[in-house]
Amino acid sequence: MQISCDFKSIVDRYDIIFFDAFGVIKNYKGLVPGIEGTFAYLEAQNKEYYIVTNDASRSPFQLAESYHNKGLHAITHDRIISSGMLAKDYLDLKVPQGIVAYLGTPDSAHYIESQGLHTLPISQVNDDNINEVSALVFLDDEGFDWFSDLNKCVNLLRKRNIPAIVANTDRAYPLNLHDVSIAIGGLANMIENIVGKKFIRFGKPDSQMFMFAYDLIRERRPIDKKNIVMVGDTLQTDIMGGNKFGFDTVLVLSGNTQKVDAKTRINSTGIVPTYICESAVI
Amino acid sequence: MQISCDFKSIVDRYDIIFFDAFGVIKNYKGLVPGIEGTFAYLEAQNKEYYIVTNDASRSPFQLAESYHNKGLHAITHDRIISSGMLAKDYLDLKVPQGIVAYLGTPDSAHYIESQGLHTLPISQVNDDNINEVSALVFLDDEGFDWFSDLNKCVNLLRKRNIPAIVANTDRAYPLNLHDVSIAIGGLANMIENIVGKKFIRFGKPDSQMFMFAYDLIRERRPIDKKNIVMVGDTLQTDIMGGNKFGFDTVLVLSGNTQKVDAKTRINSTGIVPTYICESAVI
Amino acid sequence: MQISCDFKSIVDRYDIIFFDAFGVIKNYKGLVPGIEGTFAYLEAQNKEYYIVTNDASRSPFQLAESYHNKGLHAITHDRIISSGMLAKDYLDLKVPQGIVAYLGTPDSAHYIESQGLHTLPISQVNDDNINEVSALVFLDDEGFDWFSDLNKCVNLLRKRNIPAIVANTDRAYPLNLHDVSIAIGGLANMIENIVGKKFIRFGKPDSQMFMFAYDLIRERRPIDKKNIVMVGDTLQTDIMGGNKFGFDTVLVLSGNTQKVDAKTRINSTGIVPTYICESAVI
Amino acid sequence: MQISCDFKSIVDRYDIIFFDAFGVIKNYKGLVPGIEGTFAYLEAQNKEYYIVTNDASRSPFQLAESYHNKGLHAITHDRIISSGMLAKDYLDLKVPQGIVAYLGTPDSAHYIESQGLHTLPISQVNDDNINEVSALVFLDDEGFDWFSDLNKCVNLLRKRNIPAIVANTDRAYPLNLHDVSIAIGGLANMIENIVGKKFIRFGKPDSQMFMFAYDLIRERRPIDKKNIVMVGDTLQTDIMGGNKFGFDTVLVLSGNTQKVDAKTRINSTGIVPTYICESAVI
Repeated sequence: MQISCDFKSIVDRYDIIFFDAFGVIKNYKGLVPGIEGTFAYLEAQNKEYYIVTNDASRSPFQLAESYHNKGLHAITHDRIISSGMLAKDYLDLKVPQGIVAYLGTPDSAHYIESQGLHTLPISQVNDDNINEVSALVFLDDEGFDWFSDLNKCVNLLRKRNIPAIVANTDRAYPLNLHDVSIAIGGLANMIENIVGKKFIRFGKPDSQMFMFAYDLIRERRPIDKKNIVMVGDTLQTDIMGGNKFGFDTVLVLSGNTQKVDAKTRINSTGIVPTYICESAVI
Repeated sequence: MQISCDFKSIVDRYDIIFFDAFGVIKNYKGLVPGIEGTFAYLEAQNKEYYIVTNDASRSPFQLAESYHNKGLHAITHDRIISSGMLAKDYLDLKVPQGIVAYLGTPDSAHYIESQGLHTLPISQVNDDNINEVSALVFLDDEGFDWFSDLNKCVNLLRKRNIPAIVANTDRAYPLNLHDVSIAIGGLANMIENIVGKKFIRFGKPDSQMFMFAYDLIRERRPIDKKNIVMVGDTLQTDIMGGNKFGFDTVLVLSGNTQKVDAKTRINSTGIVPTYICESAVI
Repeated sequence: MQISCDFKSIVDRYDIIFFDAFGVIKNYKGLVPGIEGTFAYLEAQNKEYYIVTNDASRSPFQLAESYHNKGLHAITHDRIISSGMLAKDYLDLKVPQGIVAYLGTPDSAHYIESQGLHTLPISQVNDDNINEVSALVFLDDEGFDWFSDLNKCVNLLRKRNIPAIVANTDRAYPLNLHDVSIAIGGLANMIENIVGKKFIRFGKPDSQMFMFAYDLIRERRPIDKKNIVMVGDTLQTDIMGGNKFGFDTVLVLSGNTQKVDAKTRINSTGIVPTYICESAVI
Repeated sequence: MQISCDFKSIVDRYDIIFFDAFGVIKNYKGLVPGIEGTFAYLEAQNKEYYIVTNDASRSPFQLAESYHNKGLHAITHDRIISSGMLAKDYLDLKVPQGIVAYLGTPDSAHYIESQGLHTLPISQVNDDNINEVSALVFLDDEGFDWFSDLNKCVNLLRKRNIPAIVANTDRAYPLNLHDVSIAIGGLANMIENIVGKKFIRFGKPDSQMFMFAYDLIRERRPIDKKNIVMVGDTLQTDIMGGNKFGFDTVLVLSGNTQKVDAKTRINSTGIVPTYICESAVI
């Protein structure tokens, strides 16, 4: 395992590149400087690429728009695979009717709405409608009052034996250079421990995330896992998940994993990427 | 293991009785009806008794006063041993100076104050004083803004390698007949998982709780563990802790453990009380 | 949720049936009595069916043969999807060369062999060949000496930063009416906790198991998840995994889950099957 | 937090010194070279000292003898406090009669025998005597057949709702410079996870271990926690436990914690010793 700084030569060996978003393409300040060059190169070389992200705060259209607003136009909505899409898929398949209570912003909820289902902020669940609630979805750490609404979640799940879906498994995310923020996945873990039931989680490192992306591609053309590489900044999600699914993996040092302790972390976790690069910038 | 309804005959066999508070002496409505009779009997028989409680929300004086206000005068402050007292003891021994940041109400903080230490709500920790913070204490689930203050705790513990003390390990508590509330122990578990550090916990089933009570008695007279019985409503805290410390134990069915599933829970957890009684009422 | 005894009417609603093996088709005594009728009916109705099993002890050919020896000829090797197949797939994709050390019988190891890879019982790893070992696979609880070989695994993983693959995640399995046996998944959990590294697990409830089966079918014809039902006896693996993947699910009461506590377990875990049947016998 | 090499000046500040055994006084090769000088100094200065060890393999007499055989005569049996002593204490208080089944050597079992109790290796538990078994004790990783006897433990605990006592909570111990061995605490964790019951654990970092030592001293003379310092090589047991009990603590770098990563581990765990020294040698 050596730190190879040539992300370009790695890209040249594969047909399809999967990117994590936060810590790889963008960070709390905006785009990773120079990342536009990477996508220009991929386009020029006719490489296929996808963003595979533990993000359920917005729809792929809105996520794509946020890249466009930052000046990165290469990432269109059909290039984005989010854990929120898997949550929506689950609801479509398994929750035919009723109210889906949620924790998150209206943006996050709007996206999971579908025929027959009515989304409702957990704050609006009450004695009159609680028996119609057929699922609880954890979407985003914003858009609700933590004290009253987290307590409401606990009591909803004690009273109704309904599926609880965690659409973003991350426990925290960087807010700026010095601070992190508790993510919805961390809040969901607490509630799961308190109520003692098994929640349904979508998001890396879970295989279903990679499978969803893989399937989208296969619907258009035959592919081989050996021709796909997963690029991420986090060992426990991007690299662990990519490895398990059978992809080659690139750890980049532009986010959660710092150059100074990359090797220590790889040795202590046993999660070994195929390559290590300073960043995904070409 | 049989449900013996005669709490009195059990009491007769021991010199000292330890009681859990919530679910045994009081509940969300007030005192457990008839519990005054138990303490009258104990006084008449010259039995010694103590309340051993996972409660760090108030001082023993304030806790005793709350019983007096409900009409139970037998419980004086010197009869109360709380997990908050152990947290205070820890601070006295191990944190000689600086600021102790806390989550909880002013009542809970007032109690842990001591010479040389200055308590400060986590909300008031800022860039100017963060380097003087020498401990973080989780006291109560009320008295702070969950969103901003829980996030502040995470970032404080990432920046300063200071002890984090959990003065009440309960994860939830009953609010009324139908609802529970997330307790400070549940919030502390979430933050411990996110920051990845080891917190210091006080409260049943931890032995230190029983040891504190046991020591108080031994300072006055010799005793034998065989002459003490622990009475509680929760297998995982009262009974587990009492058994491990070497006490006989009584599970009462007036709180967390319902008659209908007491045996199922005892079998599934392997936590076996010496006796089971409907309640601690004589 | 009601116990519907009519497994046949359920089968009629789907095109493809996935079966767990142990506790559904067979048990420690042999075949579940009458299960041949189920497969006769499926054949007569032109239903497609697959066995999806957390079993890495033998190849699909050998597993199929064991059904034939018991008189059930409907289950051919191409109907069997085992967690062992996923482990083999992983090795093919991610471990191009070297020695694969294993815990299990020669039968289990024979199956995962492939070009370029050499399987070796952990007992034969020594100072001369340890540097060539490129993976460790947990296949079966038999075929090795627990004391010396489990200790060797711990030390191999401390010395070499290689992937550890758990090809059967079950922690225990029934041996007879009264006794269970510790399974390789239970042993692997212990070693993972001791060495502190992240192991790669294949087997229900993990989605990759269901995806593997789903993919095999899709290679031949288009399908829809709504036309597949998963039949199993264990909430935490069969039902949890099937639900998450978007399948309808049937809990049968012929194995791990007894009729007497099915509802208690469903309520306490929050894992809710679409249907409950006494057994899969038609 | 600085590495102060002067263990002597630390010792001078306290009346009573508690030492961990393995990694502090002895290692796999024998005594830590020069440690005799430490005890000579303690004797000369009239300091009181105790060995506080997670060891249930032998009685304090046999443990003391093993030091004498290595040439260290200062450690007499009454200076040794072992987790095995707490297990014996528990049995004396809580298990008045019947058979105590055990995992370990005859040496370990001999020690826990007491009036009314009959110890029996788990291998000799059978259908005839299983109903008389009143406790299961995990003493040592040697002296039994792992395959058959660990499976017997699982089935014993499924059939009989009896206390399971773990007399040594360590998960692994060093065998030589390169290898470790799975300890009885690691095996007990596996079995606890499989049977799903709560085991009773004795050993650092649990407070009961420190209290036992503290009590022995207090029976002879008044002491203050501020005059006691705990010396150990392991953050998670010696330092965590000592800190929580209110003692000052010394981390020595002669065992589990290496100089090269001491600070990394202290920062990542949040377990901060009062002092760090190269070793306990004076």
